[in-house]
Amino acid sequence: MLAPLQNDNFLRACLRQPTDHTPIWLMRQAGRYLPEYRATREKAGSFMGLATNRDYATEVTLQPLERYPLDAAILFSDILTVPDAMGLGLTFQQGEGPKFAKVVRDEAAVAALEVPDMDKLRYVFDAVTSIRHALKGRVPLIGFSGSPWTLACYMVEGGGSDDYRQVKSLMYARPDLMHRMLDINARSVAAYLNAQIEAGAQAVMLFDSWGGVLADGAFQAFSLAYSRQVLSQVKTEHDGVRIPRILFTKGGGLWLDEIADAGADVVGLDWTMNLGKARERVGHRVALQGNLDPNVLFAPPENVRAEARKVLDSFGKPTPGSGHIFNLGHGISQFTPPESVTALVDEVHSHSRRLRAML
Amino acid sequence: MLAPLQNDNFLRACLRQPTDHTPIWLMRQAGRYLPEYRATREKAGSFMGLATNRDYATEVTLQPLERYPLDAAILFSDILTVPDAMGLGLTFQQGEGPKFAKVVRDEAAVAALEVPDMDKLRYVFDAVTSIRHALKGRVPLIGFSGSPWTLACYMVEGGGSDDYRQVKSLMYARPDLMHRMLDINARSVAAYLNAQIEAGAQAVMLFDSWGGVLADGAFQAFSLAYSRQVLSQVKTEHDGVRIPRILFTKGGGLWLDEIADAGADVVGLDWTMNLGKARERVGHRVALQGNLDPNVLFAPPENVRAEARKVLDSFGKPTPGSGHIFNLGHGISQFTPPESVTALVDEVHSHSRRLRAML
Repeated sequence: MLAPLQNDNFLRACLRQPTDHTPIWLMRQAGRYLPEYRATREKAGSFMGLATNRDYATEVTLQPLERYPLDAAILFSDILTVPDAMGLGLTFQQGEGPKFAKVVRDEAAVAALEVPDMDKLRYVFDAVTSIRHALKGRVPLIGFSGSPWTLACYMVEGGGSDDYRQVKSLMYARPDLMHRMLDINARSVAAYLNAQIEAGAQAVMLFDSWGGVLADGAFQAFSLAYSRQVLSQVKTEHDGVRIPRILFTKGGGLWLDEIADAGADVVGLDWTMNLGKARERVGHRVALQGNLDPNVLFAPPENVRAEARKVLDSFGKPTPGSGHIFNLGHGISQFTPPESVTALVDEVHSHSRRLRAML
Repeated sequence: MLAPLQNDNFLRACLRQPTDHTPIWLMRQAGRYLPEYRATREKAGSFMGLATNRDYATEVTLQPLERYPLDAAILFSDILTVPDAMGLGLTFQQGEGPKFAKVVRDEAAVAALEVPDMDKLRYVFDAVTSIRHALKGRVPLIGFSGSPWTLACYMVEGGGSDDYRQVKSLMYARPDLMHRMLDINARSVAAYLNAQIEAGAQAVMLFDSWGGVLADGAFQAFSLAYSRQVLSQVKTEHDGVRIPRILFTKGGGLWLDEIADAGADVVGLDWTMNLGKARERVGHRVALQGNLDPNVLFAPPENVRAEARKVLDSFGKPTPGSGHIFNLGHGISQFTPPESVTALVDEVHSHSRRLRAML
């Protein structure tokens, strides 16, 4: 039996319902900037050792909540678990980010791809259920995946890239193969997010981390179309409760209108987009999540607080039908001083309460 | 005595005057994708050996014009010559991009910065004059520099970066120091571009390669304000001839309206921005330059041609008061097959003539 939810500000903001303060959580909030995370990671031996162990994943997911009054927890995992389950062999080399043992660059490699057996991702669903129990209803739990296009970037490149040459070469030279891969990715991601919801995720987020590297036209055809496919296949409720769905496209500000119509409840924004202008453009179609530059957290606390207020003020006072979830515009840096997060969370809570109290 | 200009399509498009075809040139068109460039580079020993030698710089600047009927030449140099002249010690390590021997990260380092003696950049001005003579009036010559903000990124980081942590930390923690550095950079860049114009550059371009990594608000204060300062100090004509000024901000699409008012004649765009929408937004304020994804050049020639037509069609038929210069949205990749450029240049010329012939 799961305890009832004590703080539903995050879920309410996602659904554009009134909240008493602006909820905040941080992408990669369970991570290397926390000494307690580094200690658990040490015990686990590797990133995947941490992510695939239910107890470790539960432990690190809860760590930031012990330090900070955050309004949501996010499953500790990686955006690339799905292609790993497809058999591509995911590892994380120290300081180098994700690497796949196999890359997908030709017709034969695409032909060999299939929607993976969800049993291979059982460790994720077990972690979700375990975290829900450990949370005891304090805050909601967010599940997630990389978007079909973002998965394809890593599957073709084999790791990070600064020019996306391989994946774009395939896309421009053999769009048919790229579409085949993206369709498989979309069906896999939808099944994966639905299984996370069944296991207890109370909201889900699709990270289109690399949608923003595409040209206008290519973005709509190769990234957004497949995020839309995922969202059309992911549950909107579970056990009679609405499950908000968040779509985050780094560098997607120019396409905000189209992204807002992709079927998500919430659109995540990076720091390049003015939140007030974004709010005008989306109207009451979706809530907005974002969008502080994570590098602000390297400044002294008073500057962190001032920049947090700027973000809240740019969104403006929430009104019925609008919703704002405070977040960074990208994952928190491993070099962040933990005290900066204390100042940030406190300022977001207190200043957003002041904004609501203003006439 | 310099020969009269035979092909002024590029200059006319910059000034939004009618042209018989859409002019095309490519960022980094003299570069490693050309075997003849690699041969000269070999003789010179290093990138800076090439850039600082007037005869080598002239030779490589003209190489792409021997292969392709491009409509402009661009000085072979680097965007970081100004901080090198400030004494920061620029080198290029094989495959690693630019590195500075000294970084600028504290009050003392900023206090030591000065507008460099332009004599230290004499090799650039000599190259400009030499190239003008060698061109014999075939096409116009473009001079350039990095923007004040983009120079600051490298000066603080000491090289490339994937998170801009050092430069943004300084900016958020000590905005006063950042403004001081940017003002010195702006005055230096203005003097540098004016000296290039005196030496024979017929247009100048400011590369704000990293403006797009800034948050909304920070972009305007730390990047655009200083590009505007440069443009206000750079000559608009020389010897009675108009000198068009181009401002290119990679990832700047969201700020197009503000960029179009910064004082440039032409705004360069990367591939994320739809050219038709951009044209609607800027009206007759500026001409537009761009914006094919350089990765298109890895596809077969017929796909290259199709994507080039899409870019031309998205801008639409030129009308009085509008101007389009075809370019990539970023520098050409060193891995580009030279034949792709043949197809690209031919298609831009022929399709843009067809567009003009249509009713």
